[in-house]
Amino acid sequence: MNAPAKFFDASAPVAFGGKDAGNTPAFRWYDKDRLVHGRRLEDHLRFAVCYWHSFCWPGGDPFGGETFLRPWHQGADAMAQARAKADVAFELFRLLDVPFFTFHDVDAAPEGTSLSESVANLNAIADLFEAKMASAKVRLLWGTANLFTHRRYMAGAATNPDPEIFTYAAGQVRAALEVTHRLGGQNYVLWGGREGYETLLNTDLKRELDQLGRFISLVVEHKHKIGFKGPILIEPKPKEPTKHQYDFDVATCYGFLERYDLLNDVKLNIEQNHAILAGHSFHHEVALAEALGIFGSLDVNRGDDLLGWDTDQFAMNVPELALVFHEILNRGGFTSGGLNFDAKIRRQSIDPDDLIHAHVGSMDACARAFLAAADMLDAGALTAPLAQRYEGWAAPEGRAILGGQRSLAELADRALSPGFDPRPRSGRQEYLESLVNRYV
Amino acid sequence: MNAPAKFFDASAPVAFGGKDAGNTPAFRWYDKDRLVHGRRLEDHLRFAVCYWHSFCWPGGDPFGGETFLRPWHQGADAMAQARAKADVAFELFRLLDVPFFTFHDVDAAPEGTSLSESVANLNAIADLFEAKMASAKVRLLWGTANLFTHRRYMAGAATNPDPEIFTYAAGQVRAALEVTHRLGGQNYVLWGGREGYETLLNTDLKRELDQLGRFISLVVEHKHKIGFKGPILIEPKPKEPTKHQYDFDVATCYGFLERYDLLNDVKLNIEQNHAILAGHSFHHEVALAEALGIFGSLDVNRGDDLLGWDTDQFAMNVPELALVFHEILNRGGFTSGGLNFDAKIRRQSIDPDDLIHAHVGSMDACARAFLAAADMLDAGALTAPLAQRYEGWAAPEGRAILGGQRSLAELADRALSPGFDPRPRSGRQEYLESLVNRYV
Amino acid sequence: MNAPAKFFDASAPVAFGGKDAGNTPAFRWYDKDRLVHGRRLEDHLRFAVCYWHSFCWPGGDPFGGETFLRPWHQGADAMAQARAKADVAFELFRLLDVPFFTFHDVDAAPEGTSLSESVANLNAIADLFEAKMASAKVRLLWGTANLFTHRRYMAGAATNPDPEIFTYAAGQVRAALEVTHRLGGQNYVLWGGREGYETLLNTDLKRELDQLGRFISLVVEHKHKIGFKGPILIEPKPKEPTKHQYDFDVATCYGFLERYDLLNDVKLNIEQNHAILAGHSFHHEVALAEALGIFGSLDVNRGDDLLGWDTDQFAMNVPELALVFHEILNRGGFTSGGLNFDAKIRRQSIDPDDLIHAHVGSMDACARAFLAAADMLDAGALTAPLAQRYEGWAAPEGRAILGGQRSLAELADRALSPGFDPRPRSGRQEYLESLVNRYV
Amino acid sequence: MNAPAKFFDASAPVAFGGKDAGNTPAFRWYDKDRLVHGRRLEDHLRFAVCYWHSFCWPGGDPFGGETFLRPWHQGADAMAQARAKADVAFELFRLLDVPFFTFHDVDAAPEGTSLSESVANLNAIADLFEAKMASAKVRLLWGTANLFTHRRYMAGAATNPDPEIFTYAAGQVRAALEVTHRLGGQNYVLWGGREGYETLLNTDLKRELDQLGRFISLVVEHKHKIGFKGPILIEPKPKEPTKHQYDFDVATCYGFLERYDLLNDVKLNIEQNHAILAGHSFHHEVALAEALGIFGSLDVNRGDDLLGWDTDQFAMNVPELALVFHEILNRGGFTSGGLNFDAKIRRQSIDPDDLIHAHVGSMDACARAFLAAADMLDAGALTAPLAQRYEGWAAPEGRAILGGQRSLAELADRALSPGFDPRPRSGRQEYLESLVNRYV
Ligand SMILES: [Co+2]
Ligand SMILES: [Co+2]
Ligand SMILES: [Co+2]
Ligand SMILES: [Co+2]
Ligand SMILES: [Co+2]
Ligand SMILES: [Co+2]
Ligand SMILES: [Co+2]
Ligand SMILES: [Co+2]
Repeated sequence: MNAPAKFFDASAPVAFGGKDAGNTPAFRWYDKDRLVHGRRLEDHLRFAVCYWHSFCWPGGDPFGGETFLRPWHQGADAMAQARAKADVAFELFRLLDVPFFTFHDVDAAPEGTSLSESVANLNAIADLFEAKMASAKVRLLWGTANLFTHRRYMAGAATNPDPEIFTYAAGQVRAALEVTHRLGGQNYVLWGGREGYETLLNTDLKRELDQLGRFISLVVEHKHKIGFKGPILIEPKPKEPTKHQYDFDVATCYGFLERYDLLNDVKLNIEQNHAILAGHSFHHEVALAEALGIFGSLDVNRGDDLLGWDTDQFAMNVPELALVFHEILNRGGFTSGGLNFDAKIRRQSIDPDDLIHAHVGSMDACARAFLAAADMLDAGALTAPLAQRYEGWAAPEGRAILGGQRSLAELADRALSPGFDPRPRSGRQEYLESLVNRYV
Repeated sequence: MNAPAKFFDASAPVAFGGKDAGNTPAFRWYDKDRLVHGRRLEDHLRFAVCYWHSFCWPGGDPFGGETFLRPWHQGADAMAQARAKADVAFELFRLLDVPFFTFHDVDAAPEGTSLSESVANLNAIADLFEAKMASAKVRLLWGTANLFTHRRYMAGAATNPDPEIFTYAAGQVRAALEVTHRLGGQNYVLWGGREGYETLLNTDLKRELDQLGRFISLVVEHKHKIGFKGPILIEPKPKEPTKHQYDFDVATCYGFLERYDLLNDVKLNIEQNHAILAGHSFHHEVALAEALGIFGSLDVNRGDDLLGWDTDQFAMNVPELALVFHEILNRGGFTSGGLNFDAKIRRQSIDPDDLIHAHVGSMDACARAFLAAADMLDAGALTAPLAQRYEGWAAPEGRAILGGQRSLAELADRALSPGFDPRPRSGRQEYLESLVNRYV
Repeated sequence: MNAPAKFFDASAPVAFGGKDAGNTPAFRWYDKDRLVHGRRLEDHLRFAVCYWHSFCWPGGDPFGGETFLRPWHQGADAMAQARAKADVAFELFRLLDVPFFTFHDVDAAPEGTSLSESVANLNAIADLFEAKMASAKVRLLWGTANLFTHRRYMAGAATNPDPEIFTYAAGQVRAALEVTHRLGGQNYVLWGGREGYETLLNTDLKRELDQLGRFISLVVEHKHKIGFKGPILIEPKPKEPTKHQYDFDVATCYGFLERYDLLNDVKLNIEQNHAILAGHSFHHEVALAEALGIFGSLDVNRGDDLLGWDTDQFAMNVPELALVFHEILNRGGFTSGGLNFDAKIRRQSIDPDDLIHAHVGSMDACARAFLAAADMLDAGALTAPLAQRYEGWAAPEGRAILGGQRSLAELADRALSPGFDPRPRSGRQEYLESLVNRYV
Repeated sequence: MNAPAKFFDASAPVAFGGKDAGNTPAFRWYDKDRLVHGRRLEDHLRFAVCYWHSFCWPGGDPFGGETFLRPWHQGADAMAQARAKADVAFELFRLLDVPFFTFHDVDAAPEGTSLSESVANLNAIADLFEAKMASAKVRLLWGTANLFTHRRYMAGAATNPDPEIFTYAAGQVRAALEVTHRLGGQNYVLWGGREGYETLLNTDLKRELDQLGRFISLVVEHKHKIGFKGPILIEPKPKEPTKHQYDFDVATCYGFLERYDLLNDVKLNIEQNHAILAGHSFHHEVALAEALGIFGSLDVNRGDDLLGWDTDQFAMNVPELALVFHEILNRGGFTSGGLNFDAKIRRQSIDPDDLIHAHVGSMDACARAFLAAADMLDAGALTAPLAQRYEGWAAPEGRAILGGQRSLAELADRALSPGFDPRPRSGRQEYLESLVNRYV
């Protein structure tokens, strides 16, 4: 099996061609070496290709089966399949010239008939990754363990009614965290896909929250023990596959991290599609995480506002992305995080090159949006009116109120003073919206 | 103007008539003196009629004007209108034989041309309420200040970009809190209808959250200063009128109260319609508030699952209510809280008696649901299977894990031991659902 | 492989036990021989067990794999599996004592490597069904062909951009229709799960609608040719798996059937979960189909109002079902249609008996709701106020307007006549809602 | 009262300034005289300012009162107010240099105490409009009657349970239609805001649909009688203010028009916000109306995908608009229709110039999108791949199938022939999405 050489048509990496690039795959906006605010675009955007959607998913959906028929899904030898898959994956990383990738334990290596065997498989593939990374540019943005696909996790991993399953999950996470550490991963992610419930009729909510708090605390302790420096990232999602997932949204995660004293070690990996499933804009979730000091990384993708499930489409919406990057760049940009393509090509996109088109199109959309955000920041397009709008809070009385130097009675007395009648000012929403349109 | 005597047809309070009561308004399920778990039904359910929907709202919606043409909305003298409205309100309290009512400052008394005049109006009507309450059964469940209708609050009260408006709001809240205290109110509510944003383009999220934290802290301090014993209640709502409201849902409020160190003094007033607008079941929001120790009171109403705005219909859904009451009764029932009818008759319900039918129908639905909940608890219908499902966590190893006596490595080693292969057990959802159907 | 004898614990059919039946599976409300409006309850409700959810689905979801591990899904011989599955299926039909079942071609028999082989497989299993039905009570409510799971249909069957795939689908449908006919099926269903689009960017909407119209016309012609008497049923669903499905809802199907002149031969199979995904209540969809004369049958299940995908849960909501049955019974009840359980047990319900509990619980909920509907009709609880509300349209002027005997000008002139000022009357919604609560 | 001279700061119309126009209001993309496909941009886009949102709405929402405090809403003389409002309106038309406006009867002139008085008021203001239009550029895109605000219409106009109210509505529509005719209106609109229901418990669906069909037929007959040449437009909206509106979406309207034989005279006015409330993209609704031959005009605005009510924001989303215009331009562009700004500035946008900024920003977004659509069409960016995708249907066998020359049996036999195994082709969605991104 020698898949990569044959899988994609192209052999040379996709290059920057500018707006007038022809129809061959080329970046029109993503000029990786362009300097923005003193940093290369590649170092700002920190793109990562994800393993599961691009190399593991066969194209099925709840009403249909496999469509992709990937060559590396054929054959009886699971480890041979895993190696063939890795060959194609690293070939795509090279063709896209991306700096990062991400994976779950079971994406990379097959589960065995026992945890020992699964861990051995994972370590064998990690050896292969290590060897490939030695001669490749690509690094590991983050690793994670899949605690939701196997039937043992049908009622949750950390929040399972059975402590034995919690224990099994601990075994899986230790292995995935240590492999992530060994491969130089810059973060470790915990997505609680089954940490939630199907029905409250059989659920002890309080107990399950405590279980989840305990589990993440154990991971944090272990991370320190082995010297892993990156943050633990949890990923908000409100529902699907469960009816309710405990990491509902950014605000919920904040309260959870406060409650279990995890704010120092855990940050958030925010996904567009999960934001809208929770009833929030992507912009909101990122802005709130920044405001609360828990922003970590992005799963950059796009849901369909009119569908109620996680479509995980490739992000192509420049105006939306520009506001998200405006928020991030205004706080200094990514540190350990990056832009992970938690995005899957549609199941009808069955040509190998569809994988190229999707990533290139979305990388370009991100780059264009990022450049627009930088321009807006340079011009103070949004930041200057914002400062002006809140100027009263920067003045002495505003500072005194916020600083706790005024009581309710003092304020109330002032409000009762003759002639006290503050007048509202225009919010200028349409003006600001059309202003943004000049940049995107 | 002598409205009440003429407004409703009935003059005798609605009485319990049992399931076979005729077509005259009568309670079929709400037998107020019936003892359940040692307490009268009236003392369990603690029904409250709200002022705004039942006496102030003229029947308008975003596409249509007044339909009700209430006599007390006629005439030029706003204080005379307020007194006539109070007459009708207390007449309805009497006819429904409810133990509680609730109001906003501006529901009870008209705003003046200055805050002083508004406060004077409020106190004058409070005098009238006090006089009426002296000879009536009805008590005050809670009072509140309306910080969202007047244009000065169009960009928020506590979270306004202008500290002068924050100050004005402080003046209004002090007066409403003190009136609530004087009338023996058992709680004080803060609903942040405009504490949110219309667009992030003009919003400083972090600053506004700090403003809101400060404002509620001021109210808590003042409450202690004047000796008001009841809790401050905040009311989660995700949106409407704003695009995003900071008190989004129970989980968000929990994180907010943690962040601003308000968990000791503030509880939640949970509304069904707000729950579903946030993507949660009413049951979920109540169960979560109980789990987090912040449950306070209920705005009992009902939204339409297929509409995206706050319809505030009268609660009529017995199966839904039964699970909510199961949760509350299982934790001991209401303390200072109760069941406030934050519900409005449809704008086509223009007959005076529609107000009677709506309240009686919903009180009956609540009573029937409450009795079902008590029966389920007595039989351990849900609680016994729940204990069984989590029994592993009550066993020594489960307790050790949750108690912090196991490290990730210890658990992982155990998971790697030969033959360790925990098996999932049925969640029995359909069985439990049909079991509940036997009771409701 | 001799699955059935071992699969379910029970061996005797579930019987009616009344409200005080003990904890063994028993019907508490479904007394099949009880006469209602002159017809046995069994003949009114016409329950059907569906093959796909109950016997084919392995318990997977988009984030997780098989949980049920059914014995008949093991082994290498697909036809042997199909026979073992049929054994269990007919055993469940017997245990539940249901009068009907339903299936897709591929549920019953495995697809071969060519259409010929698939058709041969189907006919072989149809032989088996025929043999089993000879000694069983169960009959076939409807059959259908699965035109959405195989990758060839990823872009639709009738609406595929490739006429060859349309042709393949025609081959599959002919076989399924003829097998349905042979087995005495009372209807034939076409669910257009992939007849829609993922993106308008690659879709010719007008052409695809014409293709779909043509396809259904071909089926109708063939039905007449072979003498199949039952109606063709199409099943509205707005989306999922596609972004947009052409059979969006009842109203859309009506327009489609009008456009392609299919109103005489095609009726609708309406599903609760599809109704709510389209933004309608189940009640609405049924009432509208009745009003438009295209009501056919029901896929009785239940979605989660707060989730955006087809959860296909077992129907347990008595108040909702009662209004649906009120509508149907008021028009005379089912003719060729029935209540098909297009419902799946949750993937955590892994015990064989969960299949029993789910069906029994839902059959009871339906029976209870049906009895309530009959009582409401007998009492004229809703029908009498309805007639009164529209009485003006039954009076001469109302009839003249509706009968086309008034022009706009005549009406306008009358409206301009002095003193013409019609007054609205109360809609009495809360009264009617609490009235319904007395019955359910 | 001499409002206009003082209301807006500007006195010169907004002009085209190109992308580098300074901060003064200027069009950056809307170069009205630019020729596109042989027509001036102004003649393609046919912008219309609407009266209700821009001049009548006081800034209230369900939780708050007036914010705008327009001078023409002051004073006791309603007709004087109406004239002052008209002065400001025509001043805005001039400043924006728009070719069209739109209005409801009650937007323009106050309702009187009888229909006669209302009609007299309307005609008096129509005289004023006529006079103003004599010296202005602006023409009337369409007129309409408001049949939803007054309490008499609380249960519908045409679909009211009381035929007297149907009659009153007829009187109002005749007057509005005749005024529209007199002012040279190019279309007449019927929006059925209350033609729906709040609860099925009190609704006779079938009868109400017949009433609505009759009403529109009367209007069509009258239109012909008076020689009005433009189409009648109905406007799909699924809900709000009602729970269910009969004109739910384009597909529903199509079925309705078929049923009541109105397809020749009635077209659709499609609104973005209504589309998304119905669960459709704006693109979908326009494409479907074009496919069904019932496209008429657009209410160009924008809803918030995450809110469940009609926010009617100004359209600013260039990528979305480009696909809509691609659809329209591909079918030849607007005939009698145009782009009506059924959009309101946010209630916090209290400065007069916010009206200017909103319109200019949205006109620019539309122009930019339109130019992108024209470029895509010129390049065949989407149309060429589309033709290729469906090429099989243009070939002989495809044409024969669609032309009714193949029976199900013939097709089935062909599918059974050895080796018949059609293969799916890639849908290329990501490629097409990134292709569109090159243009917008
Ligand atoms: Co993700
Ligand atoms: Co996702
Ligand atoms: Co409330
Ligand atoms: Co509410
Ligand atoms: Co179905
Ligand atoms: Co379904
Ligand atoms: Co509109
Ligand atoms: Co609208």
